[in-house]
Order: sequence, then C-alpha cells, then structure tokens
Amino acid sequence: MSVAAQTKQNSPRADGRALDQLRDIRFELDVSRHAEGSCLVKFGHTHVLCTASVETKVPGWMKGSGKGWVTAEYGMLPRSTGKRMDRESVRGQQSGRTQEIQRLIGRSLRAVVDATLLGEIQIKVDCDVIQADGGTRTAAITGGYIALYQACQHLLAIKALKTMPLTDSVAAVSCGLHHDNVLIDPNYDEDSALSADANFVMTGSGQIVEVQCSGESTSITETQFFGLHTLAKSGLQTLTQLQKQALGQ
Amino acid sequence: MSVAAQTKQNSPRADGRALDQLRDIRFELDVSRHAEGSCLVKFGHTHVLCTASVETKVPGWMKGSGKGWVTAEYGMLPRSTGKRMDRESVRGQQSGRTQEIQRLIGRSLRAVVDATLLGEIQIKVDCDVIQADGGTRTAAITGGYIALYQACQHLLAIKALKTMPLTDSVAAVSCGLHHDNVLIDPNYDEDSALSADANFVMTGSGQIVEVQCSGESTSITETQFFGLHTLAKSGLQTLTQLQKQALGQ
Amino acid sequence: MSVAAQTKQNSPRADGRALDQLRDIRFELDVSRHAEGSCLVKFGHTHVLCTASVETKVPGWMKGSGKGWVTAEYGMLPRSTGKRMDRESVRGQQSGRTQEIQRLIGRSLRAVVDATLLGEIQIKVDCDVIQADGGTRTAAITGGYIALYQACQHLLAIKALKTMPLTDSVAAVSCGLHHDNVLIDPNYDEDSALSADANFVMTGSGQIVEVQCSGESTSITETQFFGLHTLAKSGLQTLTQLQKQALGQ
Amino acid sequence: MSVAAQTKQNSPRADGRALDQLRDIRFELDVSRHAEGSCLVKFGHTHVLCTASVETKVPGWMKGSGKGWVTAEYGMLPRSTGKRMDRESVRGQQSGRTQEIQRLIGRSLRAVVDATLLGEIQIKVDCDVIQADGGTRTAAITGGYIALYQACQHLLAIKALKTMPLTDSVAAVSCGLHHDNVLIDPNYDEDSALSADANFVMTGSGQIVEVQCSGESTSITETQFFGLHTLAKSGLQTLTQLQKQALGQ
Amino acid sequence: MSVAAQTKQNSPRADGRALDQLRDIRFELDVSRHAEGSCLVKFGHTHVLCTASVETKVPGWMKGSGKGWVTAEYGMLPRSTGKRMDRESVRGQQSGRTQEIQRLIGRSLRAVVDATLLGEIQIKVDCDVIQADGGTRTAAITGGYIALYQACQHLLAIKALKTMPLTDSVAAVSCGLHHDNVLIDPNYDEDSALSADANFVMTGSGQIVEVQCSGESTSITETQFFGLHTLAKSGLQTLTQLQKQALGQ
Amino acid sequence: MSVAAQTKQNSPRADGRALDQLRDIRFELDVSRHAEGSCLVKFGHTHVLCTASVETKVPGWMKGSGKGWVTAEYGMLPRSTGKRMDRESVRGQQSGRTQEIQRLIGRSLRAVVDATLLGEIQIKVDCDVIQADGGTRTAAITGGYIALYQACQHLLAIKALKTMPLTDSVAAVSCGLHHDNVLIDPNYDEDSALSADANFVMTGSGQIVEVQCSGESTSITETQFFGLHTLAKSGLQTLTQLQKQALGQ
Repeated sequence: MSVAAQTKQNSPRADGRALDQLRDIRFELDVSRHAEGSCLVKFGHTHVLCTASVETKVPGWMKGSGKGWVTAEYGMLPRSTGKRMDRESVRGQQSGRTQEIQRLIGRSLRAVVDATLLGEIQIKVDCDVIQADGGTRTAAITGGYIALYQACQHLLAIKALKTMPLTDSVAAVSCGLHHDNVLIDPNYDEDSALSADANFVMTGSGQIVEVQCSGESTSITETQFFGLHTLAKSGLQTLTQLQKQALGQ
Repeated sequence: MSVAAQTKQNSPRADGRALDQLRDIRFELDVSRHAEGSCLVKFGHTHVLCTASVETKVPGWMKGSGKGWVTAEYGMLPRSTGKRMDRESVRGQQSGRTQEIQRLIGRSLRAVVDATLLGEIQIKVDCDVIQADGGTRTAAITGGYIALYQACQHLLAIKALKTMPLTDSVAAVSCGLHHDNVLIDPNYDEDSALSADANFVMTGSGQIVEVQCSGESTSITETQFFGLHTLAKSGLQTLTQLQKQALGQ
Repeated sequence: MSVAAQTKQNSPRADGRALDQLRDIRFELDVSRHAEGSCLVKFGHTHVLCTASVETKVPGWMKGSGKGWVTAEYGMLPRSTGKRMDRESVRGQQSGRTQEIQRLIGRSLRAVVDATLLGEIQIKVDCDVIQADGGTRTAAITGGYIALYQACQHLLAIKALKTMPLTDSVAAVSCGLHHDNVLIDPNYDEDSALSADANFVMTGSGQIVEVQCSGESTSITETQFFGLHTLAKSGLQTLTQLQKQALGQ
Repeated sequence: MSVAAQTKQNSPRADGRALDQLRDIRFELDVSRHAEGSCLVKFGHTHVLCTASVETKVPGWMKGSGKGWVTAEYGMLPRSTGKRMDRESVRGQQSGRTQEIQRLIGRSLRAVVDATLLGEIQIKVDCDVIQADGGTRTAAITGGYIALYQACQHLLAIKALKTMPLTDSVAAVSCGLHHDNVLIDPNYDEDSALSADANFVMTGSGQIVEVQCSGESTSITETQFFGLHTLAKSGLQTLTQLQKQALGQ
Repeated sequence: MSVAAQTKQNSPRADGRALDQLRDIRFELDVSRHAEGSCLVKFGHTHVLCTASVETKVPGWMKGSGKGWVTAEYGMLPRSTGKRMDRESVRGQQSGRTQEIQRLIGRSLRAVVDATLLGEIQIKVDCDVIQADGGTRTAAITGGYIALYQACQHLLAIKALKTMPLTDSVAAVSCGLHHDNVLIDPNYDEDSALSADANFVMTGSGQIVEVQCSGESTSITETQFFGLHTLAKSGLQTLTQLQKQALGQ
Repeated sequence: MSVAAQTKQNSPRADGRALDQLRDIRFELDVSRHAEGSCLVKFGHTHVLCTASVETKVPGWMKGSGKGWVTAEYGMLPRSTGKRMDRESVRGQQSGRTQEIQRLIGRSLRAVVDATLLGEIQIKVDCDVIQADGGTRTAAITGGYIALYQACQHLLAIKALKTMPLTDSVAAVSCGLHHDNVLIDPNYDEDSALSADANFVMTGSGQIVEVQCSGESTSITETQFFGLHTLAKSGLQTLTQLQKQALGQ
C-alpha cells in the first residue's frame, strides 16, 4: 500500500489531504500573448486565468493626482462549474457575488501598491475562472498578484516606471470549519459542507490585508475564529514562497 | 466649564467621544404603519429605517423544504449623504457596494434564525438610509434585528408561528485604526481618515457571525487586528443591552 | 359620547372627516442634516421626505443660457405601502408611474421659479415616500415647495443669489368623486373606491399650474368636474396658509 | 387673390387656420394586413399608425375575473421628428414621456370599454408615430378608438363577442394659450411657442375622460382654463362626427 | 378564365408567381416631411419605411479622418407581423436578429459610398418595417439605397457636397430552396417552408457585396448554391432597373 | 538557411505561410472537468475553449415536440485581444457582433444534428475566446463540433441516447482577398488588411452550411467570390481530416 493511499485513509478529507494541506498549487506564467502580465493559477482543479492590462488612462476622479490605480474584474465561464450558469452578459449585469469578489481582489492588490510610484497609470487585472472547484477568489488574488507583478516589470523594462511600485507580495487562502475540524483551502465539495469559512488576505511579510469570516445561518466561537486564523497564516507562508519561486525570486 | 466640554478637549476625537465610546444610539420602534416590524435606528447622525415584511412565499429553490428565509435589501436616499447621489433606480441597477452590504445584512440576520422553526415564511428586511454619517451597515444590522424580532412576535401573536424562531440577538459595530489609535463606531469624517477598518457582527451571546476587516491601500499588523476585535466586543455588549431595552426584555 | 365620535357617525367618510376637510397636515422642516432645504410633509398617514439639493451644474442643454433649473425625483420605500413593493433599483428602472409623478412635481415647482433670477444653478428636489396612504404626489408638491424655498433662502444667505427666484408658492391637492359626493384629499382606502379623481396644482395667488383629471374605466360630467375644481380651490387656500405658517411668513 | 390666401393673411396662425379650426383630419382604415383593427390617423402633418391586436391572454392579475383589458403602447419612429431621435430600443428603455403618453391612451380607451362585456380578452392598441407635427397623443387617442372599434367589430363578426363592449366613442384634442389667444390643435411650431396647453379627452356624448392642463414654467388663470375647455369641447364634437363618418355610422 | 388565373394554376407558388418572378415592387419617394431622403419600399405585402438622416457629427473614432460614415438601424412595428411582437424598447434591448440585420444593411450601403467624397458627414438610414411578409432585410437594403441617394442629392443641392459620393447602386434579394425548386423573393409563408435560403446583395454593376446563405438545420449542395446565385443575379438586375426608374435615371 | 526561413522569404504572408496554408491547427480534448464535451481549439494564436453542456430542458416552444435543440453562446475574455475590451456583463448586454457570431455557430452545429434522434435534450455549446488572433468564429464552429460530438458520445455511453444524432461533421474557415491574392485562414493582422472576406461553413461530406461573404466598404467580382470558395473547400477538407483524427476516427 502506497504512502499516498495510507494518507488518504487516515485523512478526514475526501481527497486525502491533511487538514492543514493546500491543494496542488501551480502558477503558469506568460500564458497570454497580449497581456502585459498573465498567470494561469491552479489551486487543485480551480483554474483562474489572470491577466494584467496596462492603460495610460486613470479613472476620472484621479486625473491630475499623479497617482495610479489598480483594479480588478472577475468572471466565470458558463461551464466552469458543475452545473452550467447563465452568462452575466446575457442576464444583463454582474451579480452581487461577482461584484463583491472583484472589489475584494482590487482592494487586496492595491494594498501592496505604492500609487505614487505607479504614477498616472492604471492596471486592470482580469481574473476569469476557467474551471471552478472552490476557492476561486483566493486563487484569483494569489495569481492576480503574479500578473500584476509581471505588468510592473514590463513597465520597468520599457522605462515607463523607474521604481517597482509593489511594496510587498499578497496572497489569499480560505479556511473552513467542518464539524470540529478547521481545514485549509477547501474544494467545492468540502466548501458546501462547511459550517463557516473565512478568507484571509495577507502580505508576504505577514500583514493582514483583509479578513472575511462568515457563516451561512450560523455563528462561531472566538476560539474557532482564532483557529481559522492560525491555519491561514501557515498556508499563506507557503503560498508566498510559491509566488516567489514562480517569479524567480 | 462643563464636563462634556472637558471631555471634548481631552478626547482625540472631533466629537469629544472616548476612543471606546459609541455614538448616541437610539431605537425608535413601530415607526411604520404598514410593516410587520419596524425600527428607525440611529447611530448618532446615521439614521436607518428598518422594516420587516412577512411574505408567505419563499424563494423558488426553497419551496417544499419546510424552511423559511430571511433576506435583506439596502438603499440610500439620494440626499442621505453630504453630496447628493444618483438614484440606483435611475442608474438602472444596484451598485456593487449596495449588493455587498445587503448580502452582509441578510447573512447576519439569518445567523440567528432557526429556519425550520420559521417554516415556509419569508421575511424581507429593508434597510433604507435616511441620513448617513458613517456606519450605515452596522446600524442596519443592529436595527434590522429589532424589526425582524417584531415581525416574529407578530407571527407568534397571530398564531402563524408556535415558537420564536430567533435563537439569539445579533448586532454589529465598526472599529477603525486612526494613526496609533483604535476607535469604535467612527462617524463619516473619522471614517474617511482611517487607515483600516473592520466590521464585527456578533450574537448577543458573544459568538462571531461576520468579520470584515479591510484597508484601502494598506495592511495592518496582527496586533492591530486583535485591538480592533477587542474594542468591538466591548461595544457589541453595549449594543446588545440597548437592543434588549428597546424590546422591553 | 364625544364630539369626535359624533362627527365620525355623521360623516360619510370612514375617518370622520367632512367631505371638504383635509387630513391633518404637518410640515417638519430641517429634518436633513445635509440638504440645503428639507421638509417631512405629512398628509395624515402619508409621509413624504422632501429634500432640495443645490448643484452648480445645470443640464447640458442649458449651459450658457444664464438660466437655472429645478427638477424633481420621486421614489417610494419598498414598505411604504400596505403590501411590500419591489425596489425600482432591483427591477432595473423607474416605473412609468414614478416617471409621470416626478415629471409632474418638477413642472409644478418650475411654475413658480424665475429661471433667470436663479441663474445657472440647478436645484434637485427629491421626494421620497416614507409611508403612503394616498395623495403622495400632492403631498410631494406641497412639501417639495417648502424644501425648495429653504434652499433658495440658503442661496440668498450665502450670497449666491441676490433676489429670491420664487415668484409665488405652489401647492397641490387631490379631489375625488365617490358615488354622488365630491370629497377632498382622499386616503388610500377612499382613493381605491373613487370613480374618478383629479389633482389640482395651484399657486398661492390662485393661478392654475396643473390639472390632471382622470377616471379609471369611467368618465364624468362637466358639472362633476367643476365640483372637483371648486372643492380643490378651497383646500388649496388652506394648504397655502399652512405653508406660509411653516415658513414663518 | 384667392379666398384661402385672404384667410391666411387675416389669421393669427402661420398656417392660416382660424383659432378654433382643427387641422385637416383623416382616418385611413384597414391599413394593416395583419391587425384586427387599424387606422392611420392624420391631424395635418401628424400621422399616427394605430393597430389593435386581440390577444386571448389577459394580464396575470385579471385571470379568472371574467373581465377584459384594453391597453396601449406608443412609439415614435426615429425620424418622425424634425431632428432624428435615438431609438428607445437602443437607449434600453422607454422614456418617461413615452410611458406617460401610453398610459394616457390606455386609460382614455378603457373609459369607453365595458370590461365585463369584453370578457377575458385583451386588446393592445399600438400607436406609432410615422410623422410628428404636434398633437401626437391626441391623434393617437382619436385614431386608436377607430382601431379598437374595428377590433371589436371583428370579435363580433367571428362570434367571439355577443355584444359590442364599447359604450361610447372617445376622442382627444389639444388647446393652447398663445399670448392672449386660445387656439385649438396646435402644430409643432405653435406648440413650441405656447405658454400653456391642455389636452382634453372626452366621450362622444360629452363626458370628460381626462383633462391634463400644464404649463412649462408658468401658470394660468381660471378664466384662461375655462377658455381652453370651451374651445376643446367644440373641437371634440367635430372629431366625434368625423369618427362616426369614418366608421360608416 | 383569365390569364392571371391560369398562371396561378400552373405555378408551384401559392400566389401564382413564376419561380423567378419578384413580387410587385414599389418605391414611394418623399414620404417623410422631415427626412433628407425617404422611401416607402414595397416588396408585395412587405412594406418598409426607409428614411435617411444627415448628421454633421461622425462617430468618435472617425473624427478628424476627413471621411464620412453611413450606418443603418432596423426595427419592426409591433403589429407589422401576423402575431404581435413585444416592442424592443419594452424588452430593453434590440434582439440579436435586429442587430444582425441592421449591421448587414449598414455594410451593404457603405459598399457603394466613397467615404472621402462624403467628408465628415454621417447619414443614418432607418428602416422600419410597417408591414412584414418575408424579405424585410432585402427590401430595406433596396429601399434604403433610394433614401440614401436622395439624402446625397440633397447635400449636393445645398452645396454641402461637391461630388455624388455614391459610386454605384446597391440592391438585395432573397432566394430559397423549396424541395427541388429554387425560387426568388419568397413571401412569409414560402419562407417558413424553405429548406435553405440565401440573401444576395449586389451593386448595380453586378459586383457582389454580401452573400449570406444559411439553412436552418440543413445543408445544401454546391450546385444548389449556384442555382440560388444565378436566380438572384437575374432578380437583382430587375431591382436595379426599378431603382433607376424610381430615381428618374 | 533553413527551409522554413526560405519559405518565409518567398511567401507573400508575414508568417511565411503559403496562400492556401492553414495555420497550425490543434484540438485539445477533455480540457474541462465539468462539461459533457470540451475542446480547446487552436487556429495558430487563436484559442477558443468550447464546452458542450447537456440540459434536460428544451426551450419552451419545443416542449412536447419530441425534438432536441443545440444552441451556442460566444464570448471573448477582456484581454483575449491586443487592446483590452470592456466586459459585456459590465456594459449590460452582448454586442451585435457577439450575437451575430453565436447565432451563426448555433445554426452551423444544428445543420448536422438530427433533432428527432436527439430527443427532448438541449445541448449548449459555449465558445469562449481565450486568445484572439483572427478567425475566432471559424475556430469556434470547428472546435464546437468536437465538444458537441463528445457530449453526444457521453449521452450514448450513459444510454440517454440510442443513436448518434450527428449526421455529419461540420467545420468552418475564413478566406480573404488581399490585393490580387486570395488567402486562407488570415490572422488578425492579415484580416485587418483584407478588402473582403468570406466565412464558409461546410459539412465533412462537402455540403454547404453557411456562406457569409462581406466586404467593408467594398464589393468583389463573381470570379473573386468563386476563388474564395475554391480555396475554402480545400481548407475545409483538411480541417475535416484533423477533426476525425482528434476524435480518433
């Protein structure tokens, strides 16, 4: 009997992972011929294509400020999910969930951007879910950072910027509460069975960027919340290392 | 010189409050002639009208489940703010911010609802901001609970329910980081100057329902996050007491 | 037996009013911390919050004309009515009824504005129905005038205007035909039982601004129309007096 | 010098009409191969194509009532006007003006319909402005009645109805105040110069269906209003006669 | 027995036409009082009102190019068809079919326009179907050319243009495959029974502008396609002649 | 000097291809974990992800017909193109171009479906452009067939179908006219320089499904059209072979 199989038997998780074990994480860089930065990020079967597009036009309310802007948009292909979803373009607008997620991605990325160093440049990071299996927003933030970094490197290479405007890296992970267990990076099936989950966005140096903890029809104790937090910190250190490797740092 | 004036001089806050002091909190009940439950909640100059409407029709995906549903909608009157905003009905859709807030209110309220006890009844809690001065979403959750409670009492009174389906109370408060200070329940001017803020939603018994901590273009230390958390817990105990008083418990 | 009870018995109206008796009319001024003018107007249980917002930007087609513009928007809170209505922001557009009413309010207010004296300033009057019990559009016009007047006073006080641009006051009332009776200011229950109704908008000096007489699946005689007109004139004189009192004139 | 030329010189109106003279009124019947009733109505250069479509499905809220429904829709071709307008289908919704007009047409037609005699049938009257020169809504009502009448005749002919459900005829005309003159049925150029105008909708037997009197930034005296009313009554008698002729009555 | 009746008996088509026979084609010019060019084109019972509107403003991306632009919009009146259709303005957007057709009309007309000779002028050709009986898009192109030609003549007459910017004429016709027969200009009933149809747009000099051949759930042989092509060429020669006659050439 | 380099020098095409040479064509199957059929099709740098989703619900108008339906939707990721495009979900609707393309894909696929054999099943084929370099619609049809085929195989495997409902294969290619040359499968740069182009959709057995030939501001001769047709037929034979190989036939 192989070790993997043993682990699978002893693990409380259907895919045999330890409670504190991330899924297989992959960053495929330069997947887009057109974008200034791009990364196909994979958290197991969750695949998100992140592209960073440089525009010389900042939002109207920023004009003349000398500062730049980083924003994000999020979408899911109709059959990225187990059951096909209607296109948001057909329904005529983005759902509340979509807007909530893309606002989160944008804030998370801006937390590591020095807007003054960026100057009046806008970078739009598109995160499109090619295949979904839970954790699409955390994958999007983690991969979106890679695409953003590449776009900044591109701007440095073409001398549009003098100094790297990114002050730190940023990554995100989800942790959940399943019966008495806290587990990291749940896939879709696990996610559906959680009593509560929390998304943690942190910088490479361990600062907190965002915490979103919520149950669906439930509440949790303070101790449980701290358990989720501790687990997330550990996973985020791993993700930070993998980001560095992917960027050759 | 009065005590109030002295406090004002010694306080780092423009309105003279201590860092851990909530604004003047008011709950005006039964303000709507039509709604099954209603509460005009005031967090200082932030006034939110919360109404709870009972419907006998649950969402399609719940039909036959034997369970009920509580949902929330949020809106701001065009001149609830310092600068008039366009109506969302004129712009043709609810903004991402609006949807994010109403989803938060809905989840927060559902955390204290026993859906089985509610049975196939839907309660819609409308939270409309009459006047805004920061903290509208936390006021909405805190006042929305009052309206929801009244609607449940109404259902008990007319024998549509046998048992109170609310298992606990729920309230929310915002805390923020201003330079080295953590302060509670910031008003609009304070809010605009914060480096980070966090919304905490907790039950009357101290369980965590939601935590949303986010900076705008910044990150915070773990210690700062714990400081926000500790401050919020204290404020939420006060809000819970005030809710009880308002409901005559 | 009290006098009130006697009146009630003798009156053909459910709430005991005489046929030519307005409901209890209230104007609560300065209810908004932010708006340049504001009035919570109450026609009995019909409560409409009117705010006047000054903007220095006129519509595009007026630029350079040297003239100002007054416009109005109207909305109803979802549970202002007996049965909760869907939000227009959720439905994606304002209904035909809403647009018709806000166009009427705007025209009515502009009838007493000297656009040249106003100069290139725009005043937006928002009329939001907090609680509805019939007659929301007439209450909105009558209260909207108060908010508009205050905004003009504000502009005079800050020297943005030299001369009061309002040339007269304006008020509105509804009259209806119920069997053989003509009655004024019907509430919702009465309104639903009318065979025809007419809204009259007149200036304080008795000029006609708007007349909108319409039945639903019916027509009326000329004599009946004149009866409605005569009744309205009398009620409008009262409303004009109450407006003056509210403004301390 | 011809008589026509003389009249033109003596008339205060650019097209030589007397103040109380309607434009050339035409009803072209059966202009649609498909519709159950159709009429191309011409008020001078204002041409409106009215079609009446019979549907066996009434609105949801009428099902089982045993009553029928008549409704109207209104539209303008993009170049029906002097300056091309954007299509409402391109702008994504009907304007407030369009909705106001089609609601007026619908109410006007329903005023002469006995809904019980109609039974659970819906008739939709489409009024599309092919060419506009002022007075499109009054032409639409006047011609819409013809199309509606034909559709009812069709229902009688095919034995879907036993009794004509129209209890009277209905027509509409506009009158306006130009300096000291009251004039009837103004064309576009006249309309643009009016200080106030009023639309009167009346039945063939002289009952009042709708009165809509409004100024743009002005008010009028009671005497002026009665002048408009008197003029309209006379014109409506003529329109009623012409409708009868058109229908061969 | 009349000749027409005999033809009808021998023809495989319900209306007695020969397989290669167009319907009765009519061009009624100058039908709009307002438009710079206008033509009511009739292909049998298919009636399309085409108006050409001159605007001095080209699309944003053409500004400063020195070139002009011709574009088209297409619409159907709700009861132009056998069964009433919902208005696109009510549904909130143009259908895919509508957009496809108006893009086709625009490209077809631009194929005979020398944009440089036109200069920075835009001509919008509106094609509104008054009555539909199959072939609305081909009628729209054929009649739209007439309206466009008139608008160009108008621009020459007022000296806004020095040279006619139309380099050729353009017309369109539909051909279809019905069992083993190829037939031209099918009406609605025929169209519904075709196994495949093709629209051919050609210039007066015989150049190909557009070919759109498509089946619905079927495919055709190359030979059948050539048969459709040959038939169309012959019909288009006739249409070109009729266009010339209509324009007095 | 290598052969490839020589070819490049002698070829009139920037990428060195012969005029009748397709780009490198790839079909990557089973790329989606969720879809019943999936294919990432590559025509050179044009990459389109095609997924086929089986639904047991046919459109309303087909219920009870015993027949199935195949439809398609098309989308482009925002940065699939050289310059980032706005999301259609943000703009609030699909563009005319998008709708035109997805209607074409749907018709093309249905041409090889026996709807009766399919039974009351709907298959939705989503074609999402991951990277665009010209020819996205032809790639989508060619790859969409593969995804559709797989979905049918899946239905056979699970015994939901007894007989393969696809009666033939279908593929598409674009040909264009560049000065005097006709060339096949142009990339984006070539496409932008064409005077005219044509899309040909044909079955594996050589039947014509769709022909769409159009210029932009130009027309072509019949001879040129035949040249495009001949070139397309040859390329489509190759594509048919490659489809068969991909499906292991």
